[in-house]
Amino acid sequence: MIRFNNDYNHGAHPNILEALAATNDESYGGYGLDSWCEKAALEIKKYLDCPEAIVHFMIGGTQVNFTVIAAALRPYQSVICADSGHIHAHETGAVENTGHKIQVLPSKDGKITAEQIAAEAELYRTSGVQEHITQPKMVYLSFPTEYGTVYTLQELTEIHRVCREYGLYLFIDGARLGYGLAADGIDVTIKDIARLCDVFYCGGTKCGALFGEAVVFPTPELAVDFRSYIKQNGAMLAKGWLLGLQFYTLFHDGLYFDITKKAVGYAMQIKQAFEEKGIPFYIESNTNQQFVVLENSVMEKLAQNYIFEYELKVDETHSCVRFCTSWSTKQEEIDALVTDIRAL
Amino acid sequence: MIRFNNDYNHGAHPNILEALAATNDESYGGYGLDSWCEKAALEIKKYLDCPEAIVHFMIGGTQVNFTVIAAALRPYQSVICADSGHIHAHETGAVENTGHKIQVLPSKDGKITAEQIAAEAELYRTSGVQEHITQPKMVYLSFPTEYGTVYTLQELTEIHRVCREYGLYLFIDGARLGYGLAADGIDVTIKDIARLCDVFYCGGTKCGALFGEAVVFPTPELAVDFRSYIKQNGAMLAKGWLLGLQFYTLFHDGLYFDITKKAVGYAMQIKQAFEEKGIPFYIESNTNQQFVVLENSVMEKLAQNYIFEYELKVDETHSCVRFCTSWSTKQEEIDALVTDIRAL
Amino acid sequence: MIRFNNDYNHGAHPNILEALAATNDESYGGYGLDSWCEKAALEIKKYLDCPEAIVHFMIGGTQVNFTVIAAALRPYQSVICADSGHIHAHETGAVENTGHKIQVLPSKDGKITAEQIAAEAELYRTSGVQEHITQPKMVYLSFPTEYGTVYTLQELTEIHRVCREYGLYLFIDGARLGYGLAADGIDVTIKDIARLCDVFYCGGTKCGALFGEAVVFPTPELAVDFRSYIKQNGAMLAKGWLLGLQFYTLFHDGLYFDITKKAVGYAMQIKQAFEEKGIPFYIESNTNQQFVVLENSVMEKLAQNYIFEYELKVDETHSCVRFCTSWSTKQEEIDALVTDIRAL
Amino acid sequence: MIRFNNDYNHGAHPNILEALAATNDESYGGYGLDSWCEKAALEIKKYLDCPEAIVHFMIGGTQVNFTVIAAALRPYQSVICADSGHIHAHETGAVENTGHKIQVLPSKDGKITAEQIAAEAELYRTSGVQEHITQPKMVYLSFPTEYGTVYTLQELTEIHRVCREYGLYLFIDGARLGYGLAADGIDVTIKDIARLCDVFYCGGTKCGALFGEAVVFPTPELAVDFRSYIKQNGAMLAKGWLLGLQFYTLFHDGLYFDITKKAVGYAMQIKQAFEEKGIPFYIESNTNQQFVVLENSVMEKLAQNYIFEYELKVDETHSCVRFCTSWSTKQEEIDALVTDIRAL
Repeated sequence: MIRFNNDYNHGAHPNILEALAATNDESYGGYGLDSWCEKAALEIKKYLDCPEAIVHFMIGGTQVNFTVIAAALRPYQSVICADSGHIHAHETGAVENTGHKIQVLPSKDGKITAEQIAAEAELYRTSGVQEHITQPKMVYLSFPTEYGTVYTLQELTEIHRVCREYGLYLFIDGARLGYGLAADGIDVTIKDIARLCDVFYCGGTKCGALFGEAVVFPTPELAVDFRSYIKQNGAMLAKGWLLGLQFYTLFHDGLYFDITKKAVGYAMQIKQAFEEKGIPFYIESNTNQQFVVLENSVMEKLAQNYIFEYELKVDETHSCVRFCTSWSTKQEEIDALVTDIRAL
Repeated sequence: MIRFNNDYNHGAHPNILEALAATNDESYGGYGLDSWCEKAALEIKKYLDCPEAIVHFMIGGTQVNFTVIAAALRPYQSVICADSGHIHAHETGAVENTGHKIQVLPSKDGKITAEQIAAEAELYRTSGVQEHITQPKMVYLSFPTEYGTVYTLQELTEIHRVCREYGLYLFIDGARLGYGLAADGIDVTIKDIARLCDVFYCGGTKCGALFGEAVVFPTPELAVDFRSYIKQNGAMLAKGWLLGLQFYTLFHDGLYFDITKKAVGYAMQIKQAFEEKGIPFYIESNTNQQFVVLENSVMEKLAQNYIFEYELKVDETHSCVRFCTSWSTKQEEIDALVTDIRAL
Repeated sequence: MIRFNNDYNHGAHPNILEALAATNDESYGGYGLDSWCEKAALEIKKYLDCPEAIVHFMIGGTQVNFTVIAAALRPYQSVICADSGHIHAHETGAVENTGHKIQVLPSKDGKITAEQIAAEAELYRTSGVQEHITQPKMVYLSFPTEYGTVYTLQELTEIHRVCREYGLYLFIDGARLGYGLAADGIDVTIKDIARLCDVFYCGGTKCGALFGEAVVFPTPELAVDFRSYIKQNGAMLAKGWLLGLQFYTLFHDGLYFDITKKAVGYAMQIKQAFEEKGIPFYIESNTNQQFVVLENSVMEKLAQNYIFEYELKVDETHSCVRFCTSWSTKQEEIDALVTDIRAL
Repeated sequence: MIRFNNDYNHGAHPNILEALAATNDESYGGYGLDSWCEKAALEIKKYLDCPEAIVHFMIGGTQVNFTVIAAALRPYQSVICADSGHIHAHETGAVENTGHKIQVLPSKDGKITAEQIAAEAELYRTSGVQEHITQPKMVYLSFPTEYGTVYTLQELTEIHRVCREYGLYLFIDGARLGYGLAADGIDVTIKDIARLCDVFYCGGTKCGALFGEAVVFPTPELAVDFRSYIKQNGAMLAKGWLLGLQFYTLFHDGLYFDITKKAVGYAMQIKQAFEEKGIPFYIESNTNQQFVVLENSVMEKLAQNYIFEYELKVDETHSCVRFCTSWSTKQEEIDALVTDIRAL
């Protein structure tokens, strides 16, 4: 069985395991106050134009999401999010568990628009009963989205402008940032991401690391005493250098971008194979996640050799499923799948 | 410089790195629903007499502490804890952040007694104003304590009895459980721990793993939907098999107990060296943490070759410091320190 | 100016002020442990068929809502609510502030259906990823709804059945219960309410009292240690007898039902006047709140003599506004308004 | 039976009932946006030297305490409080329920000192592990304290200075402020209170009102969007003018100060009677609460005619009890008690 069900089904890129082995006899100070975290932060910052940026390393995405939101918002403030957004749909109410309401907007292709955000913020601004509703104070976007789509530079720029106008923080969930930045035909760079938002993260868990997310605050405003929030929320790894070491390995020579780019290339091969077969897509994606609509009999046939993720029932005879490539995908796995698709 | 500052300054036991390397090309299901987690749970349960026990793997101690407490308590209930207890003294108010009060009891040698707990519970039971105070519903103990001491079997048995009498859950923080069970002269076994409490954990982070804690519910009562709490609190590792694999490695052949026992043996060598030198202890410990009272000049002299943890000022010329051994400590490091102590 | 903007713009029914004056020289025990609270609970229970019912008195609706929900739910559980529901739309995220997600369902005429609830619960039950989403555990309904509509006996019975089937608590917000039970053409009695839900409240604030809500738990299950929740959430009035005395006054001779019935009668006069004039309703209501769609010029004309609540812009030239009667409305106020409507 | 058990066992000062009756046929806007709240705020501000002060009216003390603290603190920040402080000892963990730790200091006569506060703040400032502990950010004092004692002007001034030095907010719980300002021999005025703290409240519930607390922010810093916090925490009375009207009645002609002063005078008569009898005090108080140590037989004898509050067991044959006067106490009640004390 070949796994295309997600992008976190293998351990880590070999370079990371080597780095772990090479440093296993070394000793380090705890809690992220070590040389590897320091070096990793510098390597990441080399890709940005934010000399004042502050980088923290945390363990997983849900943890980053609720910790950042809890740190940014006052109790009566809320976060705007697409109805398909991870914090709303897949995190067991973790944000609400910190006391904050999520203001859910209908999404198209996993995205929300500057217009929608402005309308929501304007509703609050012009409300005659502000104290009876929560104040939107942050916008949460996923890049790429949960449907593998990416915002264009123009879309991000407009969202940024609206956020500035209404005093909203912009938070970009980059659990799959590498795949997003490698999207087919993309015009957004990591510099743009850093320039346009108040906080984002470079996902490691899904992009070659054993685990770990690098949280970047392009400006220090939101980062005040952030280590206290990390600790309070159980996100401070005792052996913090394990995070720094992994991110140093991924960023010091561009490995992060190379392996995710390769994975997107693999996804494009799958996409083309389905297209050539006339099999429709649930949503058009140009990153490593491909959502296709299969006849149920076809789905069952492919399931004999491949593990992929069932998403939802489209109609009585069709289902939407996800094929996902990753840094660990191999060309021969793609070849096998493409051959089988062609043979359908 | 040789580190005796804590027990989490090295990566992982070589067997664990080997296991990671050996499985790095395998693929697994996510979120802890994999064969390694299953096998690791079985290995741990072999050491217990609790066929119904439920085992979950989480990432770090603070995370386990507040997640377990949040899962066990209703909003108006509180947890009883020693004033030296980790949840009270070192976790940035993580328990309060979940909404619960900690009822702090004065400790002796890092421990609290059944009598103190009974008195606190009785105060609530006989209060005429119950609705104006929080209801104690859980007792949190560390084993070994933050001062390296361990509860005797009689002490634990009495605490257990009081907990049953007053309807309190007993929760044992085993971040250093291996070292506690290897304590010099101890009469408590892991079977006793499991028999006497409602939930405890076998710490991995400080006992040979890269990270990870195995949370054991000897009976299923408190474990209902515990995976939801794990996810909600950001403690569900995407690549959950990394936890299972590590704990399988530590428990399937008793490695966990061997390496912590050896570390305690090392600590006893340090202890003896200080004793022979007439250097007093701040608190008498029979595990891997040794708290000595050094003249400041002596402290500075030792600090030239060793890293140890400053604890507190005892008087103008003396300080309490901690020397801590671990699974990664080597006999030659102990020899060097013992030689230098003798030469003082 | 005559106020039809809401049902809480006057002090209290004269009987209540008299009762306050008559007892002002008496002294009572505090915190609701007094004879008036006891007597009021008995009077309310006379209208129900729930000998085991437990009644608590609290101060306001938002307070009741989040306290009841916080008491009933575990941290990973959520409450199902109409998109027009008060806890979702008008309470500044108070429920989320206690840590719980609201699962919002689209409403029709302010109501949600048993089918919608069943679908939501079934989604959780059959989910393969339960630990990644919140567990629906309670349904919140308003009776009457925020749009003045009421559920029929059949609708409530079906919702009750679905709640039993899926293990959901049913919570009915009765801030305007009196007006709901007096709805034109209604087939639901207070006995039905008590029989079909797990907790509801008889609103006092909007139904003749200075303030206060009587929370009824028809069976004791959800009421365990509820006084602790009341106190913890700042809802325990020091002079609790003020609540008991008011509810005794409202219930011992049926005043609560008389004055709300009269108010609904007044609303029907307004409704008829608009109908006769061919002025459409935004939503058809048979209780004390009437939502009409006025031409903006008409709205401005009426605003010269009446205070009513602006709701929303319908189109460039029309607005939806609310006319609300109450226990304090007088026939001559209705006569004036009806005359002016006819003269439009 | 005559009640000396507390200061909230009678309805309200007659002037307040009269004001309620006089306005009962008037109609008002809701939620505290009415003329009475506005006028009451102005009357209170006349006693202060804070032209920018912001006044909000809330319902009860616990509610004020946790709402103010939740509004002021970030999640990792804590509030310093005496071990006898109301928020720590009598409010069912309401502050922890909002997510914040209380840092408890041992008290003497119900008070804590500037030195203690400075030491606690210095501990954080000089800690090498700040992110592992909570940041003290607010000091909570009661004036008068739970033991009826008051801080002197020098004590308050020093506490104020320490708060400024360490960036701590000073919050004064004035549930019994009237009695405190009328303390025998006091050198503190309400102007001093307002000048030295960041937020305080004038208690109404215990000082002549049916209910209600006037929260004063001498400078607007902490009051940003405070109405949102009021609403979110269920503390926004629908008929808000009931609060404004009561406080207007209490403050526009100094009634608040007169009736509390009279009550303290009554307490001094009781105090003198006990003193003359050689009956000792548990704590020396110069306000309306008197804590005496009675032989149990004497306690039982007095309990035949008077209701007072049992506090604690002093030894096998003695108990500490509280006699409490209030705005509703009458001279003949004092006469009766004094006669009976003398006759002991």
